[in-house]
Amino acid sequence: MSQQNLESLDVERLREDFPILERELDGKPLVYLDNAATTQTADPVVDAMSDYYRRYNANVHRGIHHLSQEASIAYEEAHDRVAEFVGASGGREEMIFTKNTTESENLVAYAWGMRELGPGDEVVLTEMEHHASLVTWQQIAERTGADCTYIQIDETGRLDMDHARECITDDTAMVSAVHVSNTLGTVNPVSELVDIAHDHDALAFIDGAQAVPNRPVDVEAIDADFYAFSGHKMAGPTGIGCLYGKAHLLEEMEPYLYGGGMIRKVTFEESTWGDVPWKFEPGTPPIAEAVGLHAAVDYLEEIGMDRIRDHEEELAEYAYERLAAEGDIEIYGPEPGPDRSGLVGFNLESVHAHDLASIMNDHAVAIRAGDHCTQPLHDRLGVAASARASFYLYNTREEVDALVDAIDSARQLFA
Amino acid sequence: MSQQNLESLDVERLREDFPILERELDGKPLVYLDNAATTQTADPVVDAMSDYYRRYNANVHRGIHHLSQEASIAYEEAHDRVAEFVGASGGREEMIFTKNTTESENLVAYAWGMRELGPGDEVVLTEMEHHASLVTWQQIAERTGADCTYIQIDETGRLDMDHARECITDDTAMVSAVHVSNTLGTVNPVSELVDIAHDHDALAFIDGAQAVPNRPVDVEAIDADFYAFSGHKMAGPTGIGCLYGKAHLLEEMEPYLYGGGMIRKVTFEESTWGDVPWKFEPGTPPIAEAVGLHAAVDYLEEIGMDRIRDHEEELAEYAYERLAAEGDIEIYGPEPGPDRSGLVGFNLESVHAHDLASIMNDHAVAIRAGDHCTQPLHDRLGVAASARASFYLYNTREEVDALVDAIDSARQLFA
Repeated sequence: MSQQNLESLDVERLREDFPILERELDGKPLVYLDNAATTQTADPVVDAMSDYYRRYNANVHRGIHHLSQEASIAYEEAHDRVAEFVGASGGREEMIFTKNTTESENLVAYAWGMRELGPGDEVVLTEMEHHASLVTWQQIAERTGADCTYIQIDETGRLDMDHARECITDDTAMVSAVHVSNTLGTVNPVSELVDIAHDHDALAFIDGAQAVPNRPVDVEAIDADFYAFSGHKMAGPTGIGCLYGKAHLLEEMEPYLYGGGMIRKVTFEESTWGDVPWKFEPGTPPIAEAVGLHAAVDYLEEIGMDRIRDHEEELAEYAYERLAAEGDIEIYGPEPGPDRSGLVGFNLESVHAHDLASIMNDHAVAIRAGDHCTQPLHDRLGVAASARASFYLYNTREEVDALVDAIDSARQLFA
Repeated sequence: MSQQNLESLDVERLREDFPILERELDGKPLVYLDNAATTQTADPVVDAMSDYYRRYNANVHRGIHHLSQEASIAYEEAHDRVAEFVGASGGREEMIFTKNTTESENLVAYAWGMRELGPGDEVVLTEMEHHASLVTWQQIAERTGADCTYIQIDETGRLDMDHARECITDDTAMVSAVHVSNTLGTVNPVSELVDIAHDHDALAFIDGAQAVPNRPVDVEAIDADFYAFSGHKMAGPTGIGCLYGKAHLLEEMEPYLYGGGMIRKVTFEESTWGDVPWKFEPGTPPIAEAVGLHAAVDYLEEIGMDRIRDHEEELAEYAYERLAAEGDIEIYGPEPGPDRSGLVGFNLESVHAHDLASIMNDHAVAIRAGDHCTQPLHDRLGVAASARASFYLYNTREEVDALVDAIDSARQLFA
């Protein structure tokens, strides 16, 4: 988080890779601070996909002709590359491509949960779960007779780890937790959570949608059984999500979607399945998107995930300090530090978050306002909505200043 | 199917929109005849997606800031445009974007089938179903206690409609049929099948993956209850599939995947759902892909679907005649005519389909060989695999000649 690191990230140079950042809205330069919803897409990613479409587009599954071979190799290697990026030593055998993080959650809930959960089993979640996890496990628990319990947050917006140790018992079958909260910015002690889960012979699913794009992640160091994230939040394309799973778990699991490309043998009576990951990827997969995601991983690694983390946290700390100095702004989540990521969720006393975002938009400052798909957490915080500024590798301190200036304008307008 | 129409499709001009067609493999010009697996992607489609990424990329679900508004409108309008393209008057309320045709099939099987099917119910399929339909309904039937029956094909590769009328009874809950067979090229009388289904109060699901790209389709004229297809087979992108469903059915159905963007209200105890189509599209959807698919639909309509159909059928008829003249080639499916689409599945007596495809590849002729995800149909035909040449709007008679020449080379090599 040193100034030296920040300087060593040549943001002005990096911004050239994101032409959208040159946009002006009503003559004002775009200030894009909605990166937790989606990041902008790096030019090398767009170029890689265009090159795919214009040079070697073909369906995969190892068709015999040359184009299909090229496309198949690119598609398969993307699995290996993304696996390597998050520290999965099993390569493609531990990396499934889905359509988004949400599908990754649903895949585990269906393919593992529907078969393994039953009455008396508990799924332990946290109060800061995204709907993708919370709603999915609620539904699968309801169908299987299992129960959901929620690890509470403390007044700082961190998980209450004493409560975690109470919630996770020998009845626990699955612990599902976000790595980084998309609302509070909290970086959860996921490795500790996983250890507690394993002590009780439970599995652990980590939702890394807000972690993988922004910091070095090693799924094996965390010892997660499953770990999910998306392409579009890491300078990559829409239409692709990722699910890491330990090889032996994925091998044991049955598929939940059925179709071509995941089959060993089909008769009019029955079917048998192919190998991991293909048995979980029926139909024509997101081929161009996999090529784009591969390019995104190359791009991010070239910059360095530790430097990206430091840069974002420096910006978040600066934003936190400036907003905290205002006196009429409630900021959610922990104070800046190692368990606080590069986003700031807040509310201005006198202005509803939606109105605030609308006025910010008049200043070409793009933030998100709403429940951020964490309605129960917002209930817990006692608010219907919050405003959120979230940073990425291309954001600057000047953009934080623009955020604060725009908030000033809103305050004056509603005064 | 007149020569006039074929001339009026300016193929040389259209080929300029597909730069991949200029590729040479070992000095030989690429002859791409694997369009039933995936078509090539039109330049305007690639450009539309690049423009999205470089100019207005943002997450949707109506974020307040300008970029999110632009992306949301584009995403929503893509639903309306695709719905209109297949004759669905309900617009976005009848058009769900999935990840591929296979997911569209699974969506209906889960969201409708898991709740509506039970012991004594029958799902009627055809012997020419793709695994996406066949395996999915098998699995859902097994879990619900329903049975699957299969409408037989006759010796010409057409559905035996007398057998269809035997199979579809008052016990039938769902009839699921391909519009166009990806193996035989048969164009099924889907409107008639739907009528029979409705006469018995059953629903009808039509797999249009091989129809929508290649001919005018009107889901309301067919009166299908559900109709599925994909972007990547119609000059559009990978990573997006489509599911048309009648509005009242989609409204009654519960979602099968859970997450953000499809929610009305969530508490720690329960959830309620948003409107169609969003309740079926949880998580960040394929936004760039929807923009690309919209561009693909514009592109195809500008050319004219009737002219595309005529062009493909003319090529298929020419290929059929040339292959039939050889004497040692078995061609599957009906003779050229109104119920025969623009693909030709065949086997050369002396050469296994895989070897044939491999030798064709040496001549830069790209065909598919294998079971085409219709293993049971291949069992029925008494072969393990078949070769398939499939045509699209950019293919030429000269490419059919190249196909025949390459088959000659294979025959000589194995003589």
